[in-house]
Amino acid sequence: MTNSASASGVTPALPRASRGSHRPLGVPAVRLGQGGPLGAWQQRNADATIDHLISNLESSGVLDNFRRVIGESGAGYRGFVFADSDLYKTIEAIAWEIARSGADRWDAWLDDVIGLVGRVQESSGYVMTWIQGLHPEKKFAELDWTHEMYVLGHMIQAAVALDRAAGRDDLLGIARRFADLVDRRFGPGREEGICGHPEIETALVELYRHTGEQRYLDLAQRMIDLRGKGLLKVGGLGASYFQDHAPVRESKDATGHAVRQLYLNAGATDVYLETGEPALLDAMHAQWDSAHHRKMYLTGAFGSRHRDEAFGSDYELPSDRAYAETCATIADVHWAWRMLLASDQPATYAETIERELHNALAAAVGDDGTTFFYANPLQLRPDRFSEENAPRERQHWYSCACCPPNLARLFAQMSAYLATSTESELALHLYADAEIDVPAHLGGGVLKVETRYPDDGEVALSYDGPAPLRLALRVPSWSAVTTLDGEPAQPDADRYLRVDLSGARTLALDLTPRWTQAHHRVDALRGARAIEVGPRVYCVEQVDLPDGVALDDVVVIEGAALDLRTQEGSPTVSLTGAVRSPSGGLYAMPENDPGEQKDGVAIVAIPFATWGNRGSTAMRVWLPVV
Amino acid sequence: MTNSASASGVTPALPRASRGSHRPLGVPAVRLGQGGPLGAWQQRNADATIDHLISNLESSGVLDNFRRVIGESGAGYRGFVFADSDLYKTIEAIAWEIARSGADRWDAWLDDVIGLVGRVQESSGYVMTWIQGLHPEKKFAELDWTHEMYVLGHMIQAAVALDRAAGRDDLLGIARRFADLVDRRFGPGREEGICGHPEIETALVELYRHTGEQRYLDLAQRMIDLRGKGLLKVGGLGASYFQDHAPVRESKDATGHAVRQLYLNAGATDVYLETGEPALLDAMHAQWDSAHHRKMYLTGAFGSRHRDEAFGSDYELPSDRAYAETCATIADVHWAWRMLLASDQPATYAETIERELHNALAAAVGDDGTTFFYANPLQLRPDRFSEENAPRERQHWYSCACCPPNLARLFAQMSAYLATSTESELALHLYADAEIDVPAHLGGGVLKVETRYPDDGEVALSYDGPAPLRLALRVPSWSAVTTLDGEPAQPDADRYLRVDLSGARTLALDLTPRWTQAHHRVDALRGARAIEVGPRVYCVEQVDLPDGVALDDVVVIEGAALDLRTQEGSPTVSLTGAVRSPSGGLYAMPENDPGEQKDGVAIVAIPFATWGNRGSTAMRVWLPVV
Repeated sequence: MTNSASASGVTPALPRASRGSHRPLGVPAVRLGQGGPLGAWQQRNADATIDHLISNLESSGVLDNFRRVIGESGAGYRGFVFADSDLYKTIEAIAWEIARSGADRWDAWLDDVIGLVGRVQESSGYVMTWIQGLHPEKKFAELDWTHEMYVLGHMIQAAVALDRAAGRDDLLGIARRFADLVDRRFGPGREEGICGHPEIETALVELYRHTGEQRYLDLAQRMIDLRGKGLLKVGGLGASYFQDHAPVRESKDATGHAVRQLYLNAGATDVYLETGEPALLDAMHAQWDSAHHRKMYLTGAFGSRHRDEAFGSDYELPSDRAYAETCATIADVHWAWRMLLASDQPATYAETIERELHNALAAAVGDDGTTFFYANPLQLRPDRFSEENAPRERQHWYSCACCPPNLARLFAQMSAYLATSTESELALHLYADAEIDVPAHLGGGVLKVETRYPDDGEVALSYDGPAPLRLALRVPSWSAVTTLDGEPAQPDADRYLRVDLSGARTLALDLTPRWTQAHHRVDALRGARAIEVGPRVYCVEQVDLPDGVALDDVVVIEGAALDLRTQEGSPTVSLTGAVRSPSGGLYAMPENDPGEQKDGVAIVAIPFATWGNRGSTAMRVWLPVV
Repeated sequence: MTNSASASGVTPALPRASRGSHRPLGVPAVRLGQGGPLGAWQQRNADATIDHLISNLESSGVLDNFRRVIGESGAGYRGFVFADSDLYKTIEAIAWEIARSGADRWDAWLDDVIGLVGRVQESSGYVMTWIQGLHPEKKFAELDWTHEMYVLGHMIQAAVALDRAAGRDDLLGIARRFADLVDRRFGPGREEGICGHPEIETALVELYRHTGEQRYLDLAQRMIDLRGKGLLKVGGLGASYFQDHAPVRESKDATGHAVRQLYLNAGATDVYLETGEPALLDAMHAQWDSAHHRKMYLTGAFGSRHRDEAFGSDYELPSDRAYAETCATIADVHWAWRMLLASDQPATYAETIERELHNALAAAVGDDGTTFFYANPLQLRPDRFSEENAPRERQHWYSCACCPPNLARLFAQMSAYLATSTESELALHLYADAEIDVPAHLGGGVLKVETRYPDDGEVALSYDGPAPLRLALRVPSWSAVTTLDGEPAQPDADRYLRVDLSGARTLALDLTPRWTQAHHRVDALRGARAIEVGPRVYCVEQVDLPDGVALDDVVVIEGAALDLRTQEGSPTVSLTGAVRSPSGGLYAMPENDPGEQKDGVAIVAIPFATWGNRGSTAMRVWLPVV
């Protein structure tokens, strides 16, 4: 599995055509070590999360939902309409884990559940338990809400991953039969219909890539082409909720349900990668600007509204009310990776993925690997009550359990996102302790990356090959002083530093803690500052403050010194701030502000990635500034 | 109707006992003129709003809901479970309008609808159309959600008002039969049950006051005593949603559904007014502090959360996400008035009512008197889509139509809140163009109040009686320089200025525009200022800005001069601010802030009371400050 030629096929999103200059290396070609968090997360995912998912698929009724259709269970249907997708995402996670580690301990379980899915599949190819078991009359009749194609999309992604990773095509056969049914009914020239929840688009492009059958690409493109034409029945949340308010090529604003928009964008970018249609890429660039330059939380999260799980207006980014669903960030990683593959200027996409991994996604899983956040606010008020989607603590499972298995498949495939190859160089986009198989056309062999990044900014690179390896090392925008073997080094205009590596060299990125502010239009963040170190956003938890100091009274001083330390292996930033007296009226004339303030208060900030692991106390990323 | 002795009984909330030192004068005793907004609103209410309500009771199905129970309509049930209450609130509005003006033009309609209600009433006394017409099996079986006692409460309030105002007791008979049924089933010593939506408490106390029957007061007290004992089935919104999480006497925080909490507090204060139980008043003082000093919007609105129409956490007061339901402010006026009657220090309660009338409630009705806001945010983003409870424009009606008839009954009874009498003086709490009948024990006759307040700060007072009239004139906290006949005048410690009025004198309140800031814990308002003039909060609408200046880029300069002018009869505040360039990244290091700013931008602010009357453009109360 470590042969680079075959390994390059074992990856999500492997374009057949070449649009940008970058090609994936594949999951097995990039082996994360345990020197930094990415490898540790991947190992935790294998050791704890996947088995936790399997256990909960049973206890939450997902598997019984299949069994009851064929009389193997007497239980009632449980879960949301799209509960089948939890199973498929779990299978996909296992597939990428097999690609990574060659694990075979889930083979019997896979035999069992894939056999079950096969028995539930109708002769037509149809398989979706909510429809079959509860509402057969709704089959393909209420596409706005039934999620049938969404469920099929996740089945396809799992099936393709399993065949790529393990050469196992039983689920693929099931998925193709279901996809063929959809194609016969909704393919070009036939009935017009799209799914209320985008997802099938990216999956169908993957199925095309994996099978070589053009009709799957055509069907994906048809789903893109038909969106925004009013095919979906408008509900109380409006057509924009499921991005049916405007054609994809004309929709410039990221709007409506955030996960839906971002999956749709991943699918549209996939279609572009294969068809090269400029109008699709133009629309994606506009979407990118909207989502990332006007609607993204600092942690790489999306969706400021709980009510419809939606993007807010431009610059509407409240920390406490953030919905910031874990799945939206996962969807954005998928999309960003496809944009990277479509581009000759990949730095911005790689930097986005890095921000998302080290903040929103890192925080979405507890240290234990078996607790998860669904919503990821950037502020927790001291008296906020806890509910599933406005949490005080990570939960073991959710009534809508989309996030945990989505995290598992992302972490399992994450190594694929570290590096790409071009015709002439190996590009390193993310830094992590890893061994990377160098493609043969670049000299073969193994590039060793040794680092504790982002706990440390030093990245030791070594390569022993027949000729120097041409490396393109991404220099993050925040790295003010970057060095190579101790000498200042300047990246090219595309923010990659070119190095011909022979032997060992050390790249050092600048982890000087820095203050960050938000655009003046972000009302929720006016007069506040965040602390960042490298790719990480920091936060302050009440538990780290001196006795008697309430987090909501803490203020920081503009430009205060930030002292990065390591405590018990974990990085912290120490600073001196002040605390305001909570006295004073709710509203007052400025000249009547009591303004009492005690200086010299010791404040400790920790990475947002690790918040909420020491009980449930108040937390905030953005700190008021004097 | 203008005889002061009989008029004093024609008012909402007329205590039998005396707790505080203030007694209501009654609706007919205070006749608002057309010199200022309060009288104009009351006239508009009579001329436009009430007939609009009647028309919509028909078209929305409220009346058909009654008719169908007795086979007089074939229509299906329409509206929410509590739709009957829309009818009763409309009847109550008409009752207070009869008290005010003696109007008889709705008499036939009253005959008709009260006759209808009577025919629908079961022999047991029960009358509620959702239960009778759709779910008879749920009668008194699901008190957490059925709103049966809530509906009865509104029927009682309407019935008492109609008997007080017009000496008409047909609805009162119906209401008493229903109340007696509830008393037989849930009265002392019988089944324990409370309503999921408080409202009946205050109504039962009124029924006690009007009939003199102690058992209605006992039943009201029982509803207070039983709350917070877990009698209501906890739903997804938690027990605090309907204030069943803690006993009323122990509940110190205003929490859960804001209208429910505030109606409950009005009822608990009513019970205190009759029983004098100190523990109830202590709890109400704690509730007052929580609601008004930590959870009130500047406009006198309550409820920062849409999801459960609830109070937020302390200091959680986002302008754009404000729910700020019109009914919550109405409920707080009711409560504040009862607290005023319970107090010897009424200034704070009167000032709260004034803030609510001139801001949240004034804005909740359009100039036409037939359009209404349900939610009252303090900021409207330029691209915010419109929905019923996150509006761009006032709507003629709502699927949940609680607010329009609630506004109508409040405006019709509003004159009762201007003044009270004590043993020795007449206290003027609100200023408005009016003639006020002076109670006989204070000398009788009429006090004339001539003013355009709050368009103008001058209040001309005149009284010709046998002896000087002892007046207590409330001096608002914001009136920095108050004069009497041009001479500086200081109020007493209770913020009332005492005057022995014989002939004419002129009070002048200080309408100098002022800047207001929020407590440092209010994250949503950090680095922002509001403009206030007298009791009015001002706002800026996009429509008033120069071409090319986006509201969200406007900044004001700390301490900038505020110039109060009158344009076409409407007050405005002009100031010079600046506009920031919208360029710059979403997040940046402070030193990289482009900070481009154009000074000398002319800004015009208008009263929040009148926003949204010139089309739907962006609006904000709180302006970023440099």
